[in-house]
Amino acid sequence: MQNICLIVEYDGSGYCGFQDQARPDRPSVQAALEKAVHQVTGEAQRVHGAGRTDAGVHAYGQVVHFHTHSRIPAERMPYALNRHLPFDIVVKEARRVPDAFHARKSATSKTYEYVWYNRSQPSPFWRPYAHFVPQPLYIPAMQEAAQAFVGRHDFSAFRSAQATVRSSVRTVLLADVTADLPWVRFTVEGDGFLQHMVRIMAGTLLQIGLGKEGPESVAAALRSKLRNDAGPTAPPQGLYLVRVNYEA
Amino acid sequence: MQNICLIVEYDGSGYCGFQDQARPDRPSVQAALEKAVHQVTGEAQRVHGAGRTDAGVHAYGQVVHFHTHSRIPAERMPYALNRHLPFDIVVKEARRVPDAFHARKSATSKTYEYVWYNRSQPSPFWRPYAHFVPQPLYIPAMQEAAQAFVGRHDFSAFRSAQATVRSSVRTVLLADVTADLPWVRFTVEGDGFLQHMVRIMAGTLLQIGLGKEGPESVAAALRSKLRNDAGPTAPPQGLYLVRVNYEA
Repeated sequence: MQNICLIVEYDGSGYCGFQDQARPDRPSVQAALEKAVHQVTGEAQRVHGAGRTDAGVHAYGQVVHFHTHSRIPAERMPYALNRHLPFDIVVKEARRVPDAFHARKSATSKTYEYVWYNRSQPSPFWRPYAHFVPQPLYIPAMQEAAQAFVGRHDFSAFRSAQATVRSSVRTVLLADVTADLPWVRFTVEGDGFLQHMVRIMAGTLLQIGLGKEGPESVAAALRSKLRNDAGPTAPPQGLYLVRVNYEA
Repeated sequence: MQNICLIVEYDGSGYCGFQDQARPDRPSVQAALEKAVHQVTGEAQRVHGAGRTDAGVHAYGQVVHFHTHSRIPAERMPYALNRHLPFDIVVKEARRVPDAFHARKSATSKTYEYVWYNRSQPSPFWRPYAHFVPQPLYIPAMQEAAQAFVGRHDFSAFRSAQATVRSSVRTVLLADVTADLPWVRFTVEGDGFLQHMVRIMAGTLLQIGLGKEGPESVAAALRSKLRNDAGPTAPPQGLYLVRVNYEA
């Protein structure tokens, strides 16, 4: 049996998210991948993803793995699977990995990017791919605020009220805001993310960029642990799972 | 009466092109703009575009003009019109121009860009916005060939067989191929373009990038004036009308 790891890019606009919800009216990226694996290998295998992504959230570098008895060489898998996948899901790379490799459990960190489209009028091209913000943004304040995320913190204020995971302590390794107008990007790498965490971080940074809150509000929300002290949850279409990192 | 000039950006995927064909089953950018002008001003005015674009061709900087008795200041027009336009057409800028200004007749040149998406697997994001090419491209040969377009030439070999305009002599002011992989771009500025001219230029450059023809084939096709000596017409989704240029 081989363990195959895939790097997958997808436009999340048409999906309920990565995770399968076993409902035909709620198409998922996971179910689409499992169907393609079935068509290529003849086997009904579970495809395990490194991270859930919400409905409408995109990925440049989702990582998944699955086991198969198929002898198709891993390097042929992108061609074989892409023939069966819808055009909005693409397998970019595939490789054979040790049996013990698990896309989620073996990951050491993940990198997300949140994209704003910042000019006076919206873009006909970027509507499903960025959050449109017509007001001018003060980037240095956003960048200063982003630095307060870096380190090991209790992110209780930056999680969905529906979140169920017990511990809300996570380590953010990198947080940066860069502007290449009309695009403004927030890049964040962490050892794990709570439900809606990146979108609430982005929503908080946006409030700061608009001057509605000061950069110190991030540290205040981390201290108070109150969801109300953070900003609103940014819409999903600006969010991208960029990369999943593993030990060499 | 005011003469209003607009800079318009659109995703051409859903349109039969810029020009209205007076058929409800063939939506055009022109008809959508005229409808929005009617909703904003109450007047049925013709909206004149600087250039036709084919079905599926996009624009970052189409220029149009229309006359109106409306007293709405030009600088409010983008907000007013965008409220009534579909999301895939956006008015970026508007200004009042002299009565004699004509979007097409006053233009001194136009700049188009053709975009290839060049990597082994397609992109889920760029399918309607670039021509996917999985083979490696030899960029220096494409760049060398592009230079042969520059100057005043008879572009008979680079026009659609259906083209009806009498003279096929045009001046190309600039032609460049640049790579920022996975994107490869052909930028061309000219005083006018024949039907399908940029797409045939792009199709010819692609053949050269793939090594199927040498860079000297451009000069040969310009000399022979035979359509068969140029490459195939590149698909519309890679083409963008970037800018229309006027005398200050």
